[in-house]
Amino acid sequence: MDPKAFFKLSYGVYIVSSSTDGKDGGCVINTMTQVTSSPARISIALNKNNFTLKLIETSGTFSGVVLAEAVEMDMIKRFGFQSGREASKYEDIPMGRDSLYNPYPTENVCSRFTCRVISSLDVGTHVLIIGEVVEAQVMDGTAQPLTYANYHLKKNGTTPPNAPSYQETTEKTVGYRCSVCGYILESDTLPDDFICPVCGKDASYFSKL
Amino acid sequence: MDPKAFFKLSYGVYIVSSSTDGKDGGCVINTMTQVTSSPARISIALNKNNFTLKLIETSGTFSGVVLAEAVEMDMIKRFGFQSGREASKYEDIPMGRDSLYNPYPTENVCSRFTCRVISSLDVGTHVLIIGEVVEAQVMDGTAQPLTYANYHLKKNGTTPPNAPSYQETTEKTVGYRCSVCGYILESDTLPDDFICPVCGKDASYFSKL
Repeated sequence: MDPKAFFKLSYGVYIVSSSTDGKDGGCVINTMTQVTSSPARISIALNKNNFTLKLIETSGTFSGVVLAEAVEMDMIKRFGFQSGREASKYEDIPMGRDSLYNPYPTENVCSRFTCRVISSLDVGTHVLIIGEVVEAQVMDGTAQPLTYANYHLKKNGTTPPNAPSYQETTEKTVGYRCSVCGYILESDTLPDDFICPVCGKDASYFSKL
Repeated sequence: MDPKAFFKLSYGVYIVSSSTDGKDGGCVINTMTQVTSSPARISIALNKNNFTLKLIETSGTFSGVVLAEAVEMDMIKRFGFQSGREASKYEDIPMGRDSLYNPYPTENVCSRFTCRVISSLDVGTHVLIIGEVVEAQVMDGTAQPLTYANYHLKKNGTTPPNAPSYQETTEKTVGYRCSVCGYILESDTLPDDFICPVCGKDASYFSKL
Protein backbone atom coordinates (compact mmCIF):
# COMPACT_ATOMS: atom_id res chain seq x y z
CA MET A 1 0.00 0.00 0.00
CA ASP A 2 1.47 3.32 -1.07
CA PRO A 3 0.62 6.13 1.44
CA LYS A 4 1.21 8.71 -1.30
CA ALA A 5 -2.01 7.53 -2.98
CA PHE A 6 -3.93 9.19 -0.14
CA PHE A 7 -2.25 12.57 -0.76
CA LYS A 8 -4.33 12.83 -3.97
CA LEU A 9 -7.61 13.12 -2.06
CA SER A 10 -8.88 16.71 -1.90
CA TYR A 11 -10.22 18.39 1.23
CA GLY A 12 -10.88 21.78 2.73
CA VAL A 13 -9.76 22.94 6.18
CA TYR A 14 -12.40 23.46 8.86
CA ILE A 15 -12.81 24.30 12.53
CA VAL A 16 -15.57 22.43 14.35
CA SER A 17 -16.60 23.62 17.79
CA SER A 18 -19.00 22.89 20.60
CA SER A 19 -19.76 24.02 24.11
CA THR A 20 -20.95 22.28 27.25
CA ASP A 21 -21.01 23.14 30.96
CA GLY A 22 -19.52 26.55 30.26
CA LYS A 23 -16.54 25.04 28.44
CA ASP A 24 -15.87 25.94 24.79
CA GLY A 25 -13.77 23.79 22.51
CA GLY A 26 -12.87 23.51 18.87
CA CYS A 27 -10.42 21.76 16.58
CA VAL A 28 -9.13 21.75 13.03
CA ILE A 29 -10.31 18.96 10.75
CA ASN A 30 -10.17 18.25 7.03
CA THR A 31 -13.04 15.77 6.98
CA MET A 32 -16.19 17.89 6.73
CA THR A 33 -18.41 16.60 3.93
CA GLN A 34 -21.99 17.26 2.86
CA VAL A 35 -23.51 13.78 2.63
CA THR A 36 -27.12 14.63 1.77
CA SER A 37 -28.84 17.77 0.52
CA SER A 38 -32.47 17.13 1.41
CA PRO A 39 -32.35 17.53 4.33
CA ALA A 40 -28.84 18.99 4.41
CA ARG A 41 -26.57 16.74 6.45
CA ILE A 42 -22.85 16.91 7.09
CA SER A 43 -20.38 14.29 8.26
CA ILE A 44 -17.26 15.00 10.31
CA ALA A 45 -14.61 12.56 11.58
CA LEU A 46 -12.99 13.24 14.95
CA ASN A 47 -10.29 11.35 16.81
CA LYS A 48 -11.59 9.59 19.91
CA ASN A 49 -8.99 11.38 22.05
CA ASN A 50 -10.25 14.74 20.86
CA PHE A 51 -11.72 16.97 23.57
CA THR A 52 -14.09 18.63 21.07
CA LEU A 53 -15.61 15.20 20.38
CA LYS A 54 -16.50 14.89 24.08
CA LEU A 55 -18.15 18.32 23.97
CA ILE A 56 -20.13 17.39 20.83
CA GLU A 57 -21.23 14.05 22.30
CA THR A 58 -22.47 15.82 25.45
CA SER A 59 -24.17 18.80 23.83
CA GLY A 60 -25.46 16.98 20.74
CA THR A 61 -24.64 19.99 18.58
CA PHE A 62 -21.67 21.56 16.84
CA SER A 63 -20.65 24.44 14.65
CA GLY A 64 -18.39 24.18 11.62
CA VAL A 65 -16.62 26.93 9.70
CA VAL A 66 -14.86 26.82 6.34
CA LEU A 67 -11.47 28.52 6.73
CA ALA A 68 -10.42 31.02 4.06
CA GLU A 69 -7.05 31.03 2.30
CA ALA A 70 -6.10 34.22 4.14
CA VAL A 71 -6.29 32.54 7.56
CA GLU A 72 -3.16 32.94 9.69
CA MET A 73 -1.16 29.84 10.56
CA ASP A 74 -1.38 30.99 14.19
CA MET A 75 -5.12 30.40 14.05
CA ILE A 76 -4.66 26.85 12.73
CA LYS A 77 -1.98 26.20 15.35
CA ARG A 78 -4.26 27.45 18.10
CA PHE A 79 -7.05 25.09 17.13
CA GLY A 80 -4.85 22.26 15.96
CA PHE A 81 -1.91 22.03 18.30
CA GLN A 82 -3.04 22.84 21.81
CA SER A 83 -5.22 20.55 23.85
CA GLY A 84 -8.65 21.98 24.55
CA ARG A 85 -8.40 20.48 28.01
CA GLU A 86 -5.62 22.91 28.94
CA ALA A 87 -6.07 25.99 26.82
CA SER A 88 -9.08 28.16 26.19
CA LYS A 89 -8.91 28.21 22.42
CA TYR A 90 -11.52 30.92 22.07
CA GLU A 91 -9.81 33.36 24.44
CA ASP A 92 -8.99 36.69 22.78
CA ILE A 93 -10.13 35.89 19.27
CA PRO A 94 -13.12 37.31 17.35
CA MET A 95 -15.96 34.84 17.79
CA GLY A 96 -19.69 34.41 17.50
CA ARG A 97 -22.31 32.12 19.02
CA ASP A 98 -24.90 30.31 16.98
CA SER A 99 -28.51 29.75 18.09
CA LEU A 100 -27.45 26.53 19.87
CA TYR A 101 -24.69 28.38 21.81
CA ASN A 102 -21.83 26.79 19.88
CA PRO A 103 -18.87 29.16 19.51
CA TYR A 104 -17.31 29.79 16.11
CA PRO A 105 -14.45 31.94 14.83
CA THR A 106 -15.55 34.88 12.67
CA GLU A 107 -12.34 36.05 10.98
CA ASN A 108 -11.12 34.57 7.70
CA VAL A 109 -14.12 32.31 7.53
CA CYS A 110 -15.97 31.68 4.23
CA SER A 111 -19.13 30.17 5.67
CA ARG A 112 -20.45 28.61 8.85
CA PHE A 113 -22.86 25.84 9.77
CA THR A 114 -24.74 24.78 12.87
CA CYS A 115 -25.66 21.12 13.18
CA ARG A 116 -27.62 18.83 15.47
CA VAL A 117 -26.09 15.38 15.82
CA ILE A 118 -28.45 12.76 14.39
CA SER A 119 -26.17 9.71 14.42
CA SER A 120 -22.61 8.55 14.78
CA LEU A 121 -20.49 5.61 13.73
CA ASP A 122 -17.39 4.16 15.36
CA VAL A 123 -14.80 3.83 12.59
CA GLY A 124 -11.80 2.78 14.70
CA THR A 125 -9.50 5.55 15.93
CA HIS A 126 -12.17 8.09 14.97
CA VAL A 127 -15.90 8.63 15.32
CA LEU A 128 -17.91 9.73 12.33
CA ILE A 129 -20.60 12.21 13.40
CA ILE A 130 -23.59 12.97 11.17
CA GLY A 131 -25.12 16.37 11.78
CA GLU A 132 -28.31 17.83 10.38
CA VAL A 133 -27.69 21.41 9.34
CA VAL A 134 -29.99 23.90 11.09
CA GLU A 135 -28.12 27.08 10.17
CA ALA A 136 -25.93 27.82 7.14
CA GLN A 137 -24.53 31.27 6.50
CA VAL A 138 -22.04 32.75 4.06
CA MET A 139 -19.61 34.82 6.13
CA ASP A 140 -17.46 36.13 3.27
CA GLY A 141 -18.77 35.52 -0.21
CA THR A 142 -15.57 36.59 -2.00
CA ALA A 143 -13.02 34.72 0.15
CA GLN A 144 -11.53 31.56 -1.35
CA PRO A 145 -11.70 28.44 0.82
CA LEU A 146 -8.35 27.15 2.04
CA THR A 147 -7.80 23.74 0.49
CA TYR A 148 -5.85 21.05 2.31
CA ALA A 149 -3.30 21.13 -0.53
CA ASN A 150 -2.78 24.88 -0.13
CA TYR A 151 -2.62 24.47 3.63
CA HIS A 152 0.44 22.27 3.12
CA LEU A 153 2.01 24.89 0.82
CA LYS A 154 1.26 27.51 3.44
CA LYS A 155 2.84 25.39 6.16
CA ASN A 156 5.95 25.11 4.03
CA GLY A 157 6.12 28.84 3.47
CA THR A 158 4.93 28.91 -0.14
CA THR A 159 2.22 31.28 -1.29
CA PRO A 160 -0.76 29.25 -2.49
CA PRO A 161 -2.02 30.22 -5.95
CA ASN A 162 -4.77 32.86 -5.76
CA ALA A 163 -3.95 33.74 -2.18
CA PRO A 164 -2.43 37.22 -2.41
CA SER A 165 -3.17 37.98 1.21
CA TYR A 166 -0.96 35.21 2.48
CA GLN A 167 2.37 36.43 3.77
CA GLU A 168 5.34 34.51 2.44
CA THR A 169 8.00 33.35 4.84
CA THR A 170 11.47 31.99 4.26
CA GLU A 171 12.10 30.95 7.86
CA LYS A 172 13.20 27.37 8.36
CA THR A 173 10.54 25.43 10.21
CA VAL A 174 11.49 24.02 13.62
CA GLY A 175 9.34 21.20 14.86
CA TYR A 176 8.03 17.73 14.14
CA ARG A 177 6.45 16.29 11.02
CA CYS A 178 3.74 13.62 10.94
CA SER A 179 5.07 10.80 8.76
CA VAL A 180 1.56 9.88 7.65
CA CYS A 181 -0.03 13.13 6.52
CA GLY A 182 2.84 15.62 6.55
CA TYR A 183 1.34 17.83 9.25
CA ILE A 184 4.01 19.92 11.00
CA LEU A 185 3.95 20.76 14.69
CA GLU A 186 5.96 23.96 15.08
CA SER A 187 7.38 23.44 18.54
CA ASP A 188 10.68 22.72 20.27
CA THR A 189 9.10 19.82 22.09
CA LEU A 190 6.73 17.01 21.13
CA PRO A 191 4.32 16.10 23.96
CA ASP A 192 4.08 12.32 24.56
CA ASP A 193 0.30 12.43 24.25
CA PHE A 194 0.31 14.55 21.11
CA ILE A 195 -2.23 13.49 18.48
CA CYS A 196 -1.91 14.70 14.89
CA PRO A 197 -4.87 17.08 14.53
CA VAL A 198 -5.21 16.21 10.85
CA CYS A 199 -4.86 12.43 10.57
CA GLY A 200 -5.09 11.38 14.20
CA LYS A 201 -1.77 9.52 14.50
CA ASP A 202 0.02 9.60 17.85
CA ALA A 203 3.41 11.10 18.71
CA SER A 204 5.31 7.97 17.65
CA TYR A 205 4.57 8.83 14.03
CA PHE A 206 6.32 12.23 14.25
CA SER A 207 9.92 12.85 13.30
CA LYS A 208 12.03 15.91 14.16
CA LEU A 209 12.68 18.40 11.36
CA MET B 1 -30.37 28.66 5.52
CA ASP B 2 -28.21 29.92 2.65
CA PRO B 3 -27.39 27.11 0.16
CA LYS B 4 -24.36 29.11 -1.02
CA ALA B 5 -22.69 28.34 2.32
CA PHE B 6 -22.29 24.73 1.12
CA PHE B 7 -20.45 25.82 -2.04
CA LYS B 8 -17.47 26.70 0.17
CA LEU B 9 -16.83 23.07 1.10
CA SER B 10 -13.91 21.57 -0.85
CA TYR B 11 -13.94 18.15 -2.49
CA GLY B 12 -12.21 16.12 -5.14
CA VAL B 13 -13.93 14.17 -7.93
CA TYR B 14 -13.86 10.39 -7.82
CA ILE B 15 -15.21 7.32 -9.59
CA VAL B 16 -16.22 4.42 -7.35
CA SER B 17 -16.90 1.06 -8.94
CA SER B 18 -17.86 -2.48 -8.09
CA SER B 19 -18.75 -5.70 -9.82
CA THR B 20 -21.15 -8.51 -9.06
CA ASP B 21 -22.66 -11.39 -11.07
CA GLY B 22 -20.67 -10.39 -14.12
CA LYS B 23 -22.05 -6.85 -14.04
CA ASP B 24 -19.67 -3.88 -13.69
CA GLY B 25 -20.80 -0.49 -12.47
CA GLY B 26 -19.34 2.80 -11.39
CA CYS B 27 -20.36 6.36 -10.66
CA VAL B 28 -18.94 9.81 -10.05
CA ILE B 29 -18.95 11.08 -6.46
CA ASN B 30 -17.36 13.99 -4.62
CA THR B 31 -17.66 12.46 -1.14
CA MET B 32 -14.60 10.22 -0.80
CA THR B 33 -12.82 10.95 2.48
CA GLN B 34 -10.08 9.22 4.45
CA VAL B 35 -11.57 8.90 7.94
CA THR B 36 -8.80 6.98 9.72
CA SER B 37 -5.19 6.26 8.91
CA SER B 38 -4.41 3.27 11.12
CA PRO B 39 -5.87 1.18 9.63
CA ALA B 40 -6.59 3.25 6.54
CA ARG B 41 -10.33 3.62 6.09
CA ILE B 42 -12.32 5.63 3.59
CA SER B 43 -15.92 6.83 3.64
CA ILE B 44 -18.08 7.33 0.56
CA ALA B 45 -21.70 8.54 0.34
CA LEU B 46 -23.93 7.09 -2.38
CA ASN B 47 -27.54 7.84 -3.25
CA LYS B 48 -29.89 4.96 -2.42
CA ASN B 49 -31.13 4.90 -6.02
CA ASN B 50 -27.60 4.41 -7.28
CA PHE B 51 -26.96 1.13 -9.09
CA THR B 52 -23.30 1.11 -8.00
CA LEU B 53 -24.49 1.10 -4.37
CA LYS B 54 -26.39 -2.13 -5.05
CA LEU B 55 -23.25 -3.68 -6.55
CA ILE B 56 -21.15 -2.59 -3.55
CA GLU B 57 -23.72 -3.91 -1.05
CA THR B 58 -23.74 -7.28 -2.82
CA SER B 59 -20.01 -7.70 -3.39
CA GLY B 60 -18.87 -6.04 -0.14
CA THR B 61 -16.00 -4.36 -1.98
CA PHE B 62 -15.36 -1.34 -4.16
CA SER B 63 -12.63 0.50 -6.02
CA GLY B 64 -12.15 4.25 -5.97
CA VAL B 65 -10.03 6.43 -8.23
CA VAL B 66 -9.01 10.07 -7.90
CA LEU B 67 -9.68 11.81 -11.22
CA ALA B 68 -6.98 14.08 -12.61
CA GLU B 69 -7.56 17.62 -13.88
CA ALA B 70 -6.91 16.47 -17.44
CA VAL B 71 -9.89 14.09 -17.41
CA GLU B 72 -12.32 14.57 -20.31
CA MET B 73 -15.84 15.74 -19.53
CA ASP B 74 -17.03 12.79 -21.63
CA MET B 75 -15.59 10.48 -19.01
CA ILE B 76 -17.43 12.25 -16.20
CA LYS B 77 -20.63 12.26 -18.26
CA ARG B 78 -20.28 8.53 -18.91
CA PHE B 79 -20.01 7.71 -15.22
CA GLY B 80 -22.29 10.45 -13.99
CA PHE B 81 -25.15 10.75 -16.40
CA GLN B 82 -26.07 7.33 -17.68
CA SER B 83 -27.76 4.73 -15.56
CA GLY B 84 -25.59 1.70 -14.89
CA ARG B 85 -28.73 -0.41 -15.29
CA GLU B 86 -28.89 0.44 -18.97
CA ALA B 87 -25.40 1.21 -20.12
CA SER B 88 -22.18 -0.67 -19.76
CA LYS B 89 -20.08 2.17 -18.44
CA TYR B 90 -16.81 0.28 -18.78
CA GLU B 91 -17.31 -0.66 -22.42
CA ASP B 92 -14.54 0.62 -24.70
CA ILE B 93 -12.51 2.50 -22.10
CA PRO B 94 -9.07 1.68 -20.70
CA MET B 95 -9.64 -0.16 -17.44
CA GLY B 96 -8.02 -2.40 -14.88
CA ARG B 97 -9.20 -4.93 -12.31
CA ASP B 98 -8.03 -4.91 -8.72
CA SER B 99 -7.33 -8.05 -6.67
CA LEU B 100 -11.02 -8.16 -5.63
CA TYR B 101 -12.17 -7.99 -9.28
CA ASN B 102 -13.50 -4.43 -9.03
CA PRO B 103 -13.07 -2.53 -12.31
CA TYR B 104 -11.43 0.90 -12.36
CA PRO B 105 -10.61 3.42 -15.09
CA THR B 106 -6.89 3.82 -15.75
CA GLU B 107 -6.65 7.02 -17.81
CA ASN B 108 -6.34 10.45 -16.18
CA VAL B 109 -6.35 8.88 -12.75
CA CYS B 110 -4.03 10.14 -9.98
CA SER B 111 -4.37 7.20 -7.62
CA ARG B 112 -6.61 4.24 -6.93
CA PHE B 113 -7.86 2.35 -3.90
CA THR B 114 -9.46 -1.01 -3.24
CA CYS B 115 -11.66 -1.30 -0.17
CA ARG B 116 -13.58 -3.93 1.74
CA VAL B 117 -16.83 -2.65 3.24
CA ILE B 118 -16.67 -2.81 7.04
CA SER B 119 -19.80 -0.84 7.94
CA SER B 120 -22.45 1.46 6.59
CA LEU B 121 -24.83 4.09 7.92
CA ASP B 122 -28.20 5.19 6.58
CA VAL B 123 -28.05 9.00 6.39
CA GLY B 124 -31.37 9.63 4.62
CA THR B 125 -31.30 9.86 0.83
CA HIS B 126 -27.79 8.39 0.89
CA VAL B 127 -25.87 5.55 2.49
CA LEU B 128 -22.47 6.21 3.98
CA ILE B 129 -20.16 3.26 3.32
CA ILE B 130 -16.97 2.75 5.33
CA GLY B 131 -14.31 0.79 3.52
CA GLU B 132 -11.03 -0.56 4.80
CA VAL B 133 -8.31 0.07 2.25
CA VAL B 134 -6.57 -3.10 1.10
CA GLU B 135 -4.78 -1.65 -1.94
CA ALA B 136 -3.58 1.92 -2.57
CA GLN B 137 -1.56 2.81 -5.64
CA VAL B 138 -0.33 6.03 -7.21
CA MET B 139 -1.27 5.85 -10.90
CA ASP B 140 0.22 9.19 -12.00
CA GLY B 141 2.43 10.95 -9.47
CA THR B 142 2.65 14.22 -11.39
CA ALA B 143 -1.02 14.65 -12.33
CA GLN B 144 -3.00 17.20 -10.32
CA PRO B 145 -6.25 15.96 -8.78
CA LEU B 146 -9.39 17.51 -10.23
CA THR B 147 -11.07 19.52 -7.49
CA TYR B 148 -14.83 19.89 -7.34
CA ALA B 149 -14.36 23.67 -7.76
CA ASN B 150 -12.31 23.17 -10.95
CA TYR B 151 -14.81 20.60 -12.17
CA HIS B 152 -17.45 23.35 -12.14
CA LEU B 153 -15.11 25.69 -14.05
CA LYS B 154 -14.49 22.91 -16.54
CA LYS B 155 -18.22 22.28 -16.94
CA ASN B 156 -18.67 25.95 -17.71
CA GLY B 157 -15.94 25.92 -20.34
CA THR B 158 -13.27 27.72 -18.32
CA THR B 159 -9.75 26.35 -18.06
CA PRO B 160 -8.99 25.52 -14.43
CA PRO B 161 -5.76 27.03 -13.11
CA ASN B 162 -2.80 24.64 -13.57
CA ALA B 163 -4.67 22.48 -16.05
CA PRO B 164 -2.93 23.14 -19.33
CA SER B 165 -4.11 19.88 -20.85
CA TYR B 166 -7.75 20.83 -20.59
CA GLN B 167 -9.25 21.92 -23.87
CA GLU B 168 -11.19 25.17 -23.68
CA THR B 169 -14.60 25.36 -25.29
CA THR B 170 -16.80 28.31 -26.13
CA GLU B 171 -19.84 26.27 -27.07
CA LYS B 172 -23.04 27.18 -25.29
CA THR B 173 -24.16 24.35 -23.03
CA VAL B 174 -27.51 22.75 -23.81
CA GLY B 175 -29.11 20.85 -20.99
CA TYR B 176 -30.41 21.01 -17.46
CA ARG B 177 -28.82 22.45 -14.33
CA CYS B 178 -29.29 21.10 -10.80
CA SER B 179 -30.56 24.01 -8.70
CA VAL B 180 -28.88 22.61 -5.59
CA CYS B 181 -25.30 21.88 -6.61
CA GLY B 182 -25.02 23.40 -10.07
CA TYR B 183 -24.35 20.09 -11.83
CA ILE B 184 -25.24 20.28 -15.55
CA LEU B 185 -26.76 17.42 -17.51
CA GLU B 186 -25.80 17.98 -21.15
CA SER B 187 -28.80 16.50 -22.89
CA ASP B 188 -31.83 17.55 -24.90
CA THR B 189 -34.08 15.63 -22.56
CA LEU B 190 -34.28 15.17 -18.80
CA PRO B 191 -35.38 11.64 -17.81
CA ASP B 192 -38.14 11.64 -15.15
CA ASP B 193 -36.11 9.32 -12.94
CA PHE B 194 -32.87 11.26 -13.31
CA ILE B 195 -30.88 11.64 -10.10
CA CYS B 196 -28.16 14.28 -9.81
CA PRO B 197 -24.96 12.21 -9.69
CA VAL B 198 -23.27 14.81 -7.47
CA CYS B 199 -25.81 15.82 -4.83
CA GLY B 200 -28.49 13.18 -5.30
CA LYS B 201 -31.48 15.47 -5.98
CA ASP B 202 -34.20 14.20 -8.32
CA ALA B 203 -35.27 15.63 -11.70
CA SER B 204 -37.68 18.14 -10.11
CA TYR B 205 -34.66 20.15 -8.95
CA PHE B 206 -33.34 20.63 -12.50
CA SER B 207 -34.09 23.64 -14.67
CA LYS B 208 -33.53 23.96 -18.44
CA LEU B 209 -30.55 26.03 -19.55
